[in-house]
Amino acid sequence: MPSPDIAGTHRGYVIPIGGAEDKLHNPEILQKFVELAGGADAVITVIPTASQLDDTGDRYQTLFNELGAGTTHVLPITERSDAQKQEYVEILEQSTAIFVTGGNQLRLSTILGGTPIAKAIRQLNAQGVHYAGTSAGAAIVSQHMITAGSTGIVPTENGVSLAPGLGLVNTAVIDQHFNQRNRLARLLSAVSYNPFLIGLGLDEDTAAFINENNEFTVVGSGAITVIDPSNIEYSSMAEANRGEALTLLNLKVHILSAGSRFDLNSKQAYVK
Amino acid sequence: MPSPDIAGTHRGYVIPIGGAEDKLHNPEILQKFVELAGGADAVITVIPTASQLDDTGDRYQTLFNELGAGTTHVLPITERSDAQKQEYVEILEQSTAIFVTGGNQLRLSTILGGTPIAKAIRQLNAQGVHYAGTSAGAAIVSQHMITAGSTGIVPTENGVSLAPGLGLVNTAVIDQHFNQRNRLARLLSAVSYNPFLIGLGLDEDTAAFINENNEFTVVGSGAITVIDPSNIEYSSMAEANRGEALTLLNLKVHILSAGSRFDLNSKQAYVK
Repeated sequence: MPSPDIAGTHRGYVIPIGGAEDKLHNPEILQKFVELAGGADAVITVIPTASQLDDTGDRYQTLFNELGAGTTHVLPITERSDAQKQEYVEILEQSTAIFVTGGNQLRLSTILGGTPIAKAIRQLNAQGVHYAGTSAGAAIVSQHMITAGSTGIVPTENGVSLAPGLGLVNTAVIDQHFNQRNRLARLLSAVSYNPFLIGLGLDEDTAAFINENNEFTVVGSGAITVIDPSNIEYSSMAEANRGEALTLLNLKVHILSAGSRFDLNSKQAYVK
Repeated sequence: MPSPDIAGTHRGYVIPIGGAEDKLHNPEILQKFVELAGGADAVITVIPTASQLDDTGDRYQTLFNELGAGTTHVLPITERSDAQKQEYVEILEQSTAIFVTGGNQLRLSTILGGTPIAKAIRQLNAQGVHYAGTSAGAAIVSQHMITAGSTGIVPTENGVSLAPGLGLVNTAVIDQHFNQRNRLARLLSAVSYNPFLIGLGLDEDTAAFINENNEFTVVGSGAITVIDPSNIEYSSMAEANRGEALTLLNLKVHILSAGSRFDLNSKQAYVK
Protein backbone atom coordinates (compact mmCIF):
# COMPACT_ATOMS: atom_id res chain seq x y z
CA MET A 1 0.00 0.00 0.00
CA PRO A 2 1.37 3.48 -0.79
CA SER A 3 2.59 5.41 2.24
CA PRO A 4 -0.15 7.74 3.51
CA ASP A 5 0.09 11.37 2.48
CA ILE A 6 1.83 13.60 4.93
CA ALA A 7 -0.40 16.57 5.76
CA GLY A 8 -0.02 19.37 3.23
CA THR A 9 1.88 17.29 0.67
CA HIS A 10 0.87 15.55 -2.51
CA ARG A 11 2.09 12.23 -3.85
CA GLY A 12 4.67 12.54 -6.61
CA TYR A 13 4.04 11.12 -10.06
CA VAL A 14 4.56 7.38 -10.49
CA ILE A 15 5.81 6.69 -14.02
CA PRO A 16 6.18 3.08 -15.13
CA ILE A 17 7.82 2.81 -18.58
CA GLY A 18 7.49 -0.34 -20.72
CA GLY A 19 11.23 -0.60 -21.41
CA ALA A 20 13.37 0.39 -24.41
CA GLU A 21 12.31 4.06 -24.20
CA ASP A 22 13.69 6.21 -27.00
CA LYS A 23 16.90 7.84 -25.80
CA LEU A 24 18.12 9.50 -29.02
CA HIS A 25 15.64 10.50 -31.70
CA ASN A 26 12.52 11.38 -29.75
CA PRO A 27 13.19 10.90 -26.02
CA GLU A 28 9.83 12.39 -25.05
CA ILE A 29 9.27 10.13 -22.04
CA LEU A 30 12.64 10.91 -20.43
CA GLN A 31 12.29 14.60 -21.42
CA LYS A 32 8.91 14.86 -19.74
CA PHE A 33 10.31 13.12 -16.65
CA VAL A 34 13.21 15.62 -16.44
CA GLU A 35 10.75 18.52 -16.76
CA LEU A 36 8.51 17.11 -14.00
CA ALA A 37 11.62 16.69 -11.85
CA GLY A 38 12.29 20.41 -12.17
CA GLY A 39 14.51 20.77 -15.26
CA ALA A 40 17.51 22.91 -14.33
CA ASP A 41 16.45 22.64 -10.67
CA ALA A 42 16.01 18.86 -10.83
CA VAL A 43 17.91 16.56 -8.50
CA ILE A 44 17.50 13.07 -9.96
CA THR A 45 18.76 9.94 -8.24
CA VAL A 46 19.29 6.89 -10.44
CA ILE A 47 19.07 3.40 -8.93
CA PRO A 48 20.64 0.90 -11.38
CA THR A 49 20.31 -2.11 -9.08
CA ALA A 50 18.24 -4.23 -11.52
CA SER A 51 20.98 -4.10 -14.13
CA GLN A 52 24.12 -6.19 -14.05
CA LEU A 53 25.91 -3.90 -16.50
CA ASP A 54 28.44 -1.57 -14.90
CA ASP A 55 27.55 1.51 -16.95
CA THR A 56 23.75 1.57 -16.73
CA GLY A 57 23.64 4.25 -14.04
CA ASP A 58 26.25 6.43 -15.74
CA ARG A 59 24.43 6.15 -19.04
CA TYR A 60 21.22 7.56 -17.55
CA GLN A 61 23.20 10.24 -15.69
CA THR A 62 24.61 11.44 -19.03
CA LEU A 63 21.18 11.25 -20.67
CA PHE A 64 19.43 13.25 -17.94
CA ASN A 65 22.17 15.89 -18.00
CA GLU A 66 21.81 16.18 -21.79
CA LEU A 67 18.06 16.59 -21.33
CA GLY A 68 18.66 19.55 -19.01
CA ALA A 69 18.51 18.06 -15.53
CA GLY A 70 20.40 20.21 -13.01
CA THR A 71 21.92 17.39 -10.94
CA THR A 72 21.91 13.61 -11.32
CA HIS A 73 23.28 11.16 -8.75
CA VAL A 74 23.79 7.42 -9.19
CA LEU A 75 23.44 5.11 -6.19
CA PRO A 76 25.65 2.05 -6.83
CA ILE A 77 23.50 -0.40 -4.87
CA THR A 78 24.43 -3.93 -5.91
CA GLU A 79 23.76 -5.90 -2.72
CA ARG A 80 21.56 -5.70 0.38
CA SER A 81 24.28 -4.15 2.54
CA ASP A 82 24.44 -1.20 0.10
CA ALA A 83 20.72 -0.62 0.60
CA GLN A 84 21.27 -0.17 4.32
CA LYS A 85 23.72 2.75 3.93
CA GLN A 86 22.55 5.95 5.62
CA GLU A 87 24.61 8.07 3.20
CA TYR A 88 22.61 6.68 0.27
CA VAL A 89 19.33 7.39 2.07
CA GLU A 90 20.50 10.98 2.59
CA ILE A 91 21.29 11.40 -1.12
CA LEU A 92 17.86 9.97 -1.94
CA GLU A 93 16.22 12.45 0.45
CA GLN A 94 17.67 15.40 -1.52
CA SER A 95 15.98 14.17 -4.74
CA THR A 96 13.16 15.80 -6.64
CA ALA A 97 12.82 12.55 -8.61
CA ILE A 98 14.00 8.93 -8.53
CA PHE A 99 14.72 6.79 -11.60
CA VAL A 100 14.99 2.99 -11.41
CA THR A 101 16.55 1.30 -14.43
CA GLY A 102 15.73 -1.97 -16.18
CA GLY A 103 17.30 -5.35 -15.64
CA ASN A 104 15.82 -8.09 -13.47
CA GLN A 105 12.93 -7.13 -11.18
CA LEU A 106 13.83 -9.96 -8.80
CA ARG A 107 17.14 -8.20 -8.20
CA LEU A 108 15.17 -5.11 -7.17
CA SER A 109 12.85 -6.98 -4.83
CA THR A 110 15.53 -9.22 -3.30
CA ILE A 111 18.15 -6.47 -2.86
CA LEU A 112 15.90 -3.52 -1.91
CA GLY A 113 12.97 -5.28 -0.24
CA GLY A 114 12.61 -4.31 3.41
CA THR A 115 15.66 -1.98 3.43
CA PRO A 116 15.88 1.71 4.40
CA ILE A 117 16.21 2.53 0.67
CA ALA A 118 12.89 0.85 -0.18
CA LYS A 119 11.21 2.57 2.77
CA ALA A 120 12.66 5.94 1.70
CA ILE A 121 11.43 5.51 -1.89
CA ARG A 122 7.88 4.90 -0.64
CA GLN A 123 7.94 7.77 1.84
CA LEU A 124 9.52 10.23 -0.57
CA ASN A 125 7.02 9.42 -3.31
CA ALA A 126 4.18 9.92 -0.82
CA GLN A 127 5.69 13.32 0.02
CA GLY A 128 5.86 14.51 -3.60
CA VAL A 129 9.06 13.08 -5.07
CA HIS A 130 8.43 11.67 -8.54
CA TYR A 131 9.29 8.06 -9.33
CA ALA A 132 10.00 6.70 -12.80
CA GLY A 133 11.14 3.19 -13.62
CA THR A 134 11.69 1.38 -16.88
CA SER A 135 11.15 -2.33 -17.50
CA ALA A 136 12.11 -3.97 -14.17
CA GLY A 137 11.82 -0.50 -12.63
CA ALA A 138 8.22 -0.40 -13.88
CA ALA A 139 7.35 -3.91 -12.72
CA ILE A 140 8.49 -3.19 -9.15
CA VAL A 141 5.97 -0.33 -8.91
CA SER A 142 3.17 -2.89 -8.42
CA GLN A 143 2.31 -4.24 -5.00
CA HIS A 144 1.80 -7.59 -6.73
CA MET A 145 4.68 -7.81 -9.19
CA ILE A 146 4.94 -10.16 -12.18
CA THR A 147 8.28 -11.96 -12.17
CA ALA A 148 7.71 -14.51 -14.94
CA GLY A 149 4.96 -16.17 -16.92
CA SER A 150 3.87 -17.76 -20.14
CA THR A 151 3.71 -15.85 -23.41
CA GLY A 152 0.77 -15.76 -25.77
CA ILE A 153 -2.85 -14.72 -25.41
CA VAL A 154 -4.75 -17.38 -23.48
CA PRO A 155 -4.28 -17.43 -19.68
CA THR A 156 -3.64 -20.62 -17.75
CA GLU A 157 -3.85 -21.64 -14.11
CA ASN A 158 -0.07 -21.54 -13.68
CA GLY A 159 0.48 -18.82 -16.27
CA VAL A 160 2.20 -16.24 -14.05
CA SER A 161 4.53 -15.92 -11.06
CA LEU A 162 3.97 -13.06 -8.62
CA ALA A 163 6.19 -11.59 -5.91
CA PRO A 164 5.72 -8.57 -3.62
CA GLY A 165 6.87 -5.33 -5.24
CA LEU A 166 7.42 -1.80 -3.91
CA GLY A 167 3.69 -1.11 -3.91
CA LEU A 168 3.74 2.50 -5.12
CA VAL A 169 0.58 1.48 -6.98
CA ASN A 170 -1.72 -0.99 -5.28
CA THR A 171 -4.69 -1.06 -7.66
CA ALA A 172 -2.84 -2.31 -10.73
CA VAL A 173 -0.43 -4.98 -11.83
CA ILE A 174 2.02 -3.69 -14.40
CA ASP A 175 3.65 -5.64 -17.20
CA GLN A 176 6.22 -4.27 -19.68
CA HIS A 177 7.64 -5.06 -23.16
CA PHE A 178 3.98 -6.01 -23.55
CA ASN A 179 3.27 -6.15 -27.27
CA GLN A 180 6.87 -6.92 -28.14
CA ARG A 181 6.99 -10.03 -25.93
CA ASN A 182 3.36 -11.17 -26.26
CA ARG A 183 2.54 -10.99 -22.57
CA LEU A 184 -1.26 -10.85 -22.54
CA ALA A 185 -1.56 -14.44 -21.27
CA ARG A 186 0.47 -13.75 -18.12
CA LEU A 187 -1.29 -10.43 -17.42
CA LEU A 188 -4.71 -12.09 -17.80
CA SER A 189 -3.55 -14.87 -15.47
CA ALA A 190 -2.47 -12.25 -12.91
CA VAL A 191 -5.71 -10.24 -12.91
CA SER A 192 -7.83 -13.36 -12.82
CA TYR A 193 -6.12 -14.54 -9.63
CA ASN A 194 -7.88 -11.66 -7.89
CA PRO A 195 -10.01 -9.38 -10.05
CA PHE A 196 -9.63 -6.35 -7.77
CA LEU A 197 -6.47 -5.61 -9.77
CA ILE A 198 -6.41 -3.67 -13.03
CA GLY A 199 -3.88 -5.05 -15.51
CA LEU A 200 -1.67 -2.54 -17.33
CA GLY A 201 0.36 -3.88 -20.26
CA LEU A 202 2.97 -1.29 -21.27
CA ASP A 203 4.56 -1.48 -24.70
CA GLU A 204 8.18 -0.51 -25.18
CA ASP A 205 8.81 3.25 -25.44
CA THR A 206 5.48 3.84 -23.70
CA ALA A 207 4.82 5.20 -20.22
CA ALA A 208 1.91 5.79 -17.83
CA PHE A 209 2.30 9.14 -16.06
CA ILE A 210 0.19 8.40 -12.97
CA ASN A 211 -0.74 11.54 -11.02
CA GLU A 212 -1.62 11.93 -7.37
CA ASN A 213 -5.29 11.25 -8.14
CA ASN A 214 -4.40 7.83 -9.58
CA GLU A 215 -5.19 8.93 -13.13
CA PHE A 216 -2.63 8.35 -15.85
CA THR A 217 -1.85 9.79 -19.27
CA VAL A 218 -0.15 7.69 -21.96
CA VAL A 219 3.14 9.06 -23.34
CA GLY A 220 5.26 7.42 -26.05
CA SER A 221 5.06 5.61 -29.35
CA GLY A 222 3.24 2.42 -28.33
CA ALA A 223 0.08 1.58 -26.42
CA ILE A 224 -1.01 0.63 -22.94
CA THR A 225 -3.44 -2.29 -22.84
CA VAL A 226 -5.78 -1.96 -19.87
CA ILE A 227 -7.49 -5.13 -18.57
CA ASP A 228 -10.43 -4.34 -16.29
CA PRO A 229 -11.64 -7.61 -14.74
CA SER A 230 -13.98 -5.99 -12.23
CA ASN A 231 -17.11 -7.19 -14.05
CA ILE A 232 -15.93 -10.78 -14.60
CA GLU A 233 -19.01 -13.00 -14.50
CA TYR A 234 -17.16 -16.28 -14.29
CA SER A 235 -13.59 -17.51 -13.94
CA SER A 236 -12.49 -21.13 -13.97
CA MET A 237 -9.15 -20.21 -12.30
CA ALA A 238 -9.94 -22.02 -9.05
CA GLU A 239 -11.06 -25.25 -10.78
CA ALA A 240 -8.65 -25.44 -13.72
CA ASN A 241 -5.89 -28.01 -13.82
CA ARG A 242 -2.26 -27.01 -14.27
CA GLY A 243 -1.61 -25.65 -17.77
CA GLU A 244 -5.28 -26.02 -18.82
CA ALA A 245 -6.92 -23.19 -20.79
CA LEU A 246 -9.14 -21.00 -18.59
CA THR A 247 -12.64 -19.70 -19.12
CA LEU A 248 -13.08 -16.00 -18.27
CA LEU A 249 -16.35 -14.25 -19.05
CA ASN A 250 -16.74 -10.51 -19.49
CA LEU A 251 -13.37 -8.81 -19.34
CA LYS A 252 -13.29 -5.14 -20.30
CA VAL A 253 -10.28 -4.13 -22.40
CA HIS A 254 -9.00 -0.72 -23.53
CA ILE A 255 -6.10 -0.10 -25.89
CA LEU A 256 -4.71 3.37 -25.12
CA SER A 257 -2.21 5.22 -27.28
CA ALA A 258 -0.46 8.55 -26.68
CA GLY A 259 -2.64 11.20 -25.06
CA SER A 260 -5.33 8.82 -23.82
CA ARG A 261 -6.07 8.76 -20.09
CA PHE A 262 -7.31 6.24 -17.55
CA ASP A 263 -8.57 6.72 -14.02
CA LEU A 264 -7.44 3.78 -11.87
CA ASN A 265 -10.00 4.66 -9.19
CA SER A 266 -13.15 5.04 -11.29
CA LYS A 267 -11.84 2.65 -14.01
CA GLN A 268 -12.88 5.08 -16.72
CA ALA A 269 -10.90 5.60 -19.94
CA TYR A 270 -10.77 8.92 -21.77
CA VAL A 271 -9.50 10.03 -25.17
CA LYS A 272 -7.09 13.00 -25.06
CA MET B 1 -24.61 -13.75 -46.21
CA PRO B 2 -25.64 -17.38 -45.57
CA SER B 3 -28.09 -18.76 -48.11
CA PRO B 4 -31.66 -18.43 -46.79
CA ASP B 5 -33.22 -21.51 -45.25
CA ILE B 6 -35.29 -23.58 -47.57
CA ALA B 7 -38.75 -24.13 -46.09
CA GLY B 8 -38.81 -27.08 -43.73
CA THR B 9 -35.02 -27.45 -43.47
CA HIS B 10 -32.46 -26.33 -40.92
CA ARG B 11 -28.96 -25.04 -41.50
CA GLY B 12 -26.23 -27.59 -40.89
CA TYR B 13 -23.57 -27.05 -38.27
CA VAL B 14 -20.69 -24.76 -39.20
CA ILE B 15 -17.52 -25.96 -37.47
CA PRO B 16 -14.40 -23.82 -37.77
CA ILE B 17 -11.35 -25.56 -36.22
CA GLY B 18 -8.23 -23.59 -35.20
CA GLY B 19 -5.82 -25.92 -37.01
CA ALA B 20 -3.61 -28.77 -35.78
CA GLU B 21 -6.57 -30.73 -34.38
CA ASP B 22 -5.56 -33.89 -32.54
CA LYS B 23 -5.75 -36.81 -34.96
CA LEU B 24 -4.27 -39.61 -32.84
CA HIS B 25 -4.49 -39.47 -29.06
CA ASN B 26 -7.76 -37.65 -28.43
CA PRO B 27 -9.36 -36.77 -31.79
CA GLU B 28 -12.53 -35.49 -30.11
CA ILE B 29 -13.18 -32.71 -32.62
CA LEU B 30 -13.01 -35.00 -35.66
CA GLN B 31 -14.91 -37.73 -33.78
CA LYS B 32 -17.75 -35.34 -32.94
CA PHE B 33 -17.82 -34.17 -36.56
CA VAL B 34 -18.11 -37.77 -37.83
CA GLU B 35 -20.94 -38.42 -35.37
CA LEU B 36 -22.81 -35.28 -36.47
CA ALA B 37 -22.31 -36.38 -40.07
CA GLY B 38 -24.15 -39.59 -39.29
CA GLY B 39 -21.46 -42.06 -38.19
CA ALA B 40 -21.90 -45.28 -40.17
CA ASP B 41 -24.44 -43.47 -42.38
CA ALA B 42 -22.17 -40.45 -42.94
CA VAL B 43 -21.18 -39.39 -46.43
CA ILE B 44 -18.31 -36.94 -45.97
CA THR B 45 -16.74 -35.00 -48.84
CA VAL B 46 -13.22 -33.69 -48.25
CA ILE B 47 -12.03 -30.60 -50.16
CA PRO B 48 -8.21 -30.41 -49.86
CA THR B 49 -7.85 -27.38 -52.18
CA ALA B 50 -6.07 -25.16 -49.63
CA SER B 51 -3.23 -27.65 -49.29
CA GLN B 52 -0.44 -28.08 -51.77
CA LEU B 53 0.44 -31.51 -50.42
CA ASP B 54 -0.76 -34.41 -52.56
CA ASP B 55 -1.88 -36.65 -49.71
CA THR B 56 -3.91 -34.23 -47.55
CA GLY B 57 -7.27 -35.41 -48.84
CA ASP B 58 -6.36 -39.10 -48.58
CA ARG B 59 -5.10 -38.61 -45.05
CA TYR B 60 -8.45 -37.20 -43.87
CA GLN B 61 -10.29 -39.94 -45.78
CA THR B 62 -8.36 -42.58 -43.82
CA LEU B 63 -8.92 -40.71 -40.57
CA PHE B 64 -12.68 -40.36 -41.06
CA ASN B 65 -12.99 -44.03 -42.00
CA GLU B 66 -11.06 -45.00 -38.85
CA LEU B 67 -13.42 -42.81 -36.83
CA GLY B 68 -16.40 -44.75 -38.18
CA ALA B 69 -17.63 -42.66 -41.12
CA GLY B 70 -19.60 -44.79 -43.60
CA THR B 71 -18.29 -43.14 -46.79
CA THR B 72 -15.68 -40.47 -47.47
CA HIS B 73 -15.01 -38.89 -50.86
CA VAL B 74 -12.13 -36.59 -51.77
CA LEU B 75 -12.64 -33.91 -54.43
CA PRO B 76 -9.23 -33.24 -56.05
CA ILE B 77 -9.93 -29.58 -56.88
CA THR B 78 -6.60 -27.86 -57.53
CA GLU B 79 -7.62 -25.16 -60.04
CA ARG B 80 -10.68 -23.14 -61.01
CA SER B 81 -11.63 -25.44 -63.89
CA ASP B 82 -11.95 -28.32 -61.39
CA ALA B 83 -14.42 -26.25 -59.37
CA GLN B 84 -16.71 -25.99 -62.43
CA LYS B 85 -17.10 -29.77 -62.84
CA GLN B 86 -20.71 -30.94 -62.61
CA GLU B 87 -19.57 -34.41 -61.50
CA TYR B 88 -17.93 -32.87 -58.40
CA VAL B 89 -21.06 -30.86 -57.61
CA GLU B 90 -23.06 -34.08 -57.79
CA ILE B 91 -20.71 -35.84 -55.37
CA LEU B 92 -21.01 -32.85 -53.03
CA GLU B 93 -24.81 -33.01 -53.21
CA GLN B 94 -24.76 -36.56 -51.85
CA SER B 95 -22.89 -35.46 -48.72
CA THR B 96 -24.15 -35.36 -45.18
CA ALA B 97 -21.06 -33.26 -44.29
CA ILE B 98 -18.25 -31.34 -45.99
CA PHE B 99 -14.70 -31.02 -44.64
CA VAL B 100 -12.27 -28.35 -45.93
CA THR B 101 -8.62 -28.88 -45.01
CA GLY B 102 -5.91 -26.43 -44.02
CA GLY B 103 -3.32 -24.80 -46.23
CA ASN B 104 -3.63 -21.31 -47.69
CA GLN B 105 -7.04 -19.61 -47.43
CA LEU B 106 -6.24 -17.50 -50.49
CA ARG B 107 -6.10 -20.73 -52.50
CA LEU B 108 -9.63 -21.47 -51.29
CA SER B 109 -10.99 -18.03 -52.15
CA THR B 110 -9.19 -17.70 -55.49
CA ILE B 111 -9.91 -21.25 -56.70
CA LEU B 112 -13.44 -21.75 -55.31
CA GLY B 113 -14.77 -18.16 -55.26
CA GLY B 114 -17.75 -17.70 -57.57
CA THR B 115 -17.75 -21.34 -58.81
CA PRO B 116 -20.55 -23.94 -58.75
CA ILE B 117 -18.66 -25.70 -55.91
CA ALA B 118 -18.71 -22.58 -53.69
CA LYS B 119 -22.39 -22.04 -54.47
CA ALA B 120 -23.18 -25.69 -53.68
CA ILE B 121 -21.34 -25.53 -50.33
CA ARG B 122 -23.42 -22.52 -49.27
CA GLN B 123 -26.72 -24.01 -50.45
CA LEU B 124 -26.06 -27.42 -48.96
CA ASN B 125 -25.11 -25.95 -45.59
CA ALA B 126 -28.31 -23.89 -45.63
CA GLN B 127 -30.23 -27.11 -46.30
CA GLY B 128 -28.71 -29.00 -43.38
CA VAL B 129 -25.37 -30.37 -44.57
CA HIS B 130 -22.70 -29.84 -41.92
CA TYR B 131 -19.52 -27.94 -42.77
CA ALA B 132 -16.22 -28.28 -40.91
CA GLY B 133 -12.95 -26.63 -41.88
CA THR B 134 -9.58 -26.50 -40.20
CA SER B 135 -7.13 -23.59 -40.34
CA ALA B 136 -7.63 -22.15 -43.88
CA GLY B 137 -10.88 -24.12 -43.99
CA ALA B 138 -11.96 -22.24 -40.83
CA ALA B 139 -10.86 -18.80 -42.08
CA ILE B 140 -12.90 -19.16 -45.29
CA VAL B 141 -16.10 -19.60 -43.21
CA SER B 142 -16.13 -15.83 -42.54
CA GLN B 143 -17.75 -13.42 -44.96
CA HIS B 144 -14.84 -11.09 -44.20
CA MET B 145 -11.82 -13.39 -44.13
CA ILE B 146 -8.42 -12.60 -42.63
CA THR B 147 -5.65 -13.40 -45.11
CA ALA B 148 -2.64 -11.86 -43.34
CA GLY B 149 -1.75 -9.42 -40.59
CA SER B 150 0.68 -8.40 -37.91
CA THR B 151 1.35 -10.54 -34.85
CA GLY B 152 1.30 -9.34 -31.25
CA ILE B 153 -1.35 -7.74 -29.09
CA VAL B 154 -1.79 -4.10 -30.08
CA PRO B 155 -3.81 -3.39 -33.25
CA THR B 156 -2.65 -0.97 -35.92
CA GLU B 157 -4.29 0.85 -38.82
CA ASN B 158 -2.76 -1.50 -41.38
CA GLY B 159 -2.66 -4.50 -39.06
CA VAL B 160 -4.78 -6.90 -41.11
CA SER B 161 -5.65 -7.83 -44.68
CA LEU B 162 -9.19 -8.97 -45.47
CA ALA B 163 -10.68 -10.74 -48.48
CA PRO B 164 -14.19 -12.05 -49.17
CA GLY B 165 -14.70 -15.56 -47.80
CA LEU B 166 -17.46 -18.16 -48.24
CA GLY B 167 -19.71 -16.32 -45.82
CA LEU B 168 -21.24 -19.30 -44.01
CA VAL B 169 -21.02 -17.03 -40.95
CA ASN B 170 -21.61 -13.33 -41.49
CA THR B 171 -21.58 -12.02 -37.91
CA ALA B 172 -18.04 -13.06 -37.02
CA VAL B 173 -14.52 -12.91 -38.34
CA ILE B 174 -12.59 -16.07 -37.53
CA ASP B 175 -8.88 -16.38 -36.90
CA GLN B 176 -7.00 -19.64 -36.22
CA HIS B 177 -3.70 -20.85 -34.65
CA PHE B 178 -4.67 -17.94 -32.38
CA ASN B 179 -2.69 -18.34 -29.17
CA GLN B 180 0.11 -20.28 -30.88
CA ARG B 181 0.80 -17.51 -33.42
CA ASN B 182 -0.07 -14.47 -31.27
CA ARG B 183 -2.79 -13.14 -33.52
CA LEU B 184 -4.76 -10.83 -31.21
CA ALA B 185 -3.41 -7.68 -32.93
CA ARG B 186 -4.75 -8.67 -36.33
CA LEU B 187 -8.12 -9.82 -34.97
CA LEU B 188 -8.52 -6.54 -33.04
CA SER B 189 -7.60 -4.64 -36.21
CA ALA B 190 -10.26 -6.58 -38.14
CA VAL B 191 -13.11 -6.02 -35.68
CA SER B 192 -12.23 -2.37 -35.25
CA TYR B 193 -12.58 -1.76 -39.00
CA ASN B 194 -16.29 -2.31 -38.52
CA PRO B 195 -17.47 -3.19 -35.03
CA PHE B 196 -20.57 -5.05 -36.21
CA LEU B 197 -18.30 -8.10 -36.41
CA ILE B 198 -17.53 -10.40 -33.48
CA GLY B 199 -13.93 -11.61 -33.48
CA LEU B 200 -13.35 -15.32 -32.80
CA GLY B 201 -9.75 -16.37 -32.15
CA LEU B 202 -9.50 -20.17 -32.29
CA ASP B 203 -6.55 -21.91 -30.71
CA GLU B 204 -5.10 -25.02 -32.29
CA ASP B 205 -7.01 -28.25 -31.51
CA THR B 206 -10.06 -26.13 -30.66
CA ALA B 207 -13.33 -25.81 -32.55
CA ALA B 208 -16.55 -23.82 -32.46
CA PHE B 209 -19.55 -26.05 -33.19
CA ILE B 210 -21.99 -23.38 -34.43
CA ASN B 211 -25.58 -24.60 -34.55
CA GLU B 212 -28.48 -23.39 -36.68
CA ASN B 213 -29.36 -20.77 -34.06
CA ASN B 214 -25.90 -19.21 -34.37
CA GLU B 215 -24.84 -20.42 -30.92
CA PHE B 216 -21.59 -22.32 -30.57
CA THR B 217 -20.05 -24.73 -28.08
CA VAL B 218 -16.28 -24.95 -27.61
CA VAL B 219 -14.71 -28.39 -28.20
CA GLY B 220 -11.01 -29.22 -27.85
CA SER B 221 -7.97 -28.62 -25.70
CA GLY B 222 -7.46 -24.85 -26.19
CA ALA B 223 -9.63 -21.77 -25.93
CA ILE B 224 -11.66 -19.49 -28.15
CA THR B 225 -11.05 -15.80 -27.50
CA VAL B 226 -14.20 -13.79 -28.25
CA ILE B 227 -13.81 -10.07 -29.00
CA ASP B 228 -17.11 -8.21 -28.75
CA PRO B 229 -16.57 -4.66 -30.04
CA SER B 230 -20.25 -3.73 -30.10
CA ASN B 231 -19.92 -1.33 -27.16
CA ILE B 232 -16.74 0.41 -28.37
CA GLU B 233 -16.91 4.01 -27.15
CA TYR B 234 -14.05 5.30 -29.26
CA SER B 235 -11.76 4.03 -32.00
CA SER B 236 -8.90 5.97 -33.58
CA MET B 237 -8.86 3.62 -36.60
CA ALA B 238 -10.06 6.28 -39.05
CA GLU B 239 -7.52 8.90 -37.91
CA ALA B 240 -4.46 6.77 -37.19
CA ASN B 241 -1.43 6.88 -39.44
CA ARG B 242 -0.03 3.75 -41.03
CA GLY B 243 1.54 1.47 -38.43
CA GLU B 244 0.60 3.75 -35.51
CA ALA B 245 -0.79 2.22 -32.30
CA LEU B 246 -4.58 2.57 -32.07
CA THR B 247 -6.78 3.71 -29.23
CA LEU B 248 -9.85 1.50 -28.64
CA LEU B 249 -12.07 2.08 -25.64
CA ASN B 250 -14.36 -0.53 -24.11
CA LEU B 251 -13.90 -3.85 -25.81
CA LYS B 252 -15.57 -6.85 -24.21
CA VAL B 253 -13.49 -10.03 -24.18
CA HIS B 254 -14.34 -13.61 -23.22
CA ILE B 255 -11.90 -16.50 -23.02
CA LEU B 256 -13.87 -19.71 -23.57
CA SER B 257 -12.53 -23.20 -22.97
CA ALA B 258 -14.12 -26.59 -23.63
CA GLY B 259 -17.84 -26.75 -22.88
CA SER B 260 -18.40 -22.99 -22.80
CA ARG B 261 -20.97 -21.52 -25.17
CA PHE B 262 -21.51 -18.23 -26.98
CA ASP B 263 -24.57 -16.89 -28.78
CA LEU B 264 -23.44 -14.90 -31.83
CA ASN B 265 -26.86 -13.24 -32.08
CA SER B 266 -27.38 -12.06 -28.49
CA LYS B 267 -23.59 -11.84 -27.84
CA GLN B 268 -23.99 -13.66 -24.54
CA ALA B 269 -21.43 -16.11 -23.17
CA TYR B 270 -22.34 -19.11 -21.03
CA VAL B 271 -20.39 -21.60 -18.95
CA LYS B 272 -21.14 -25.26 -19.73
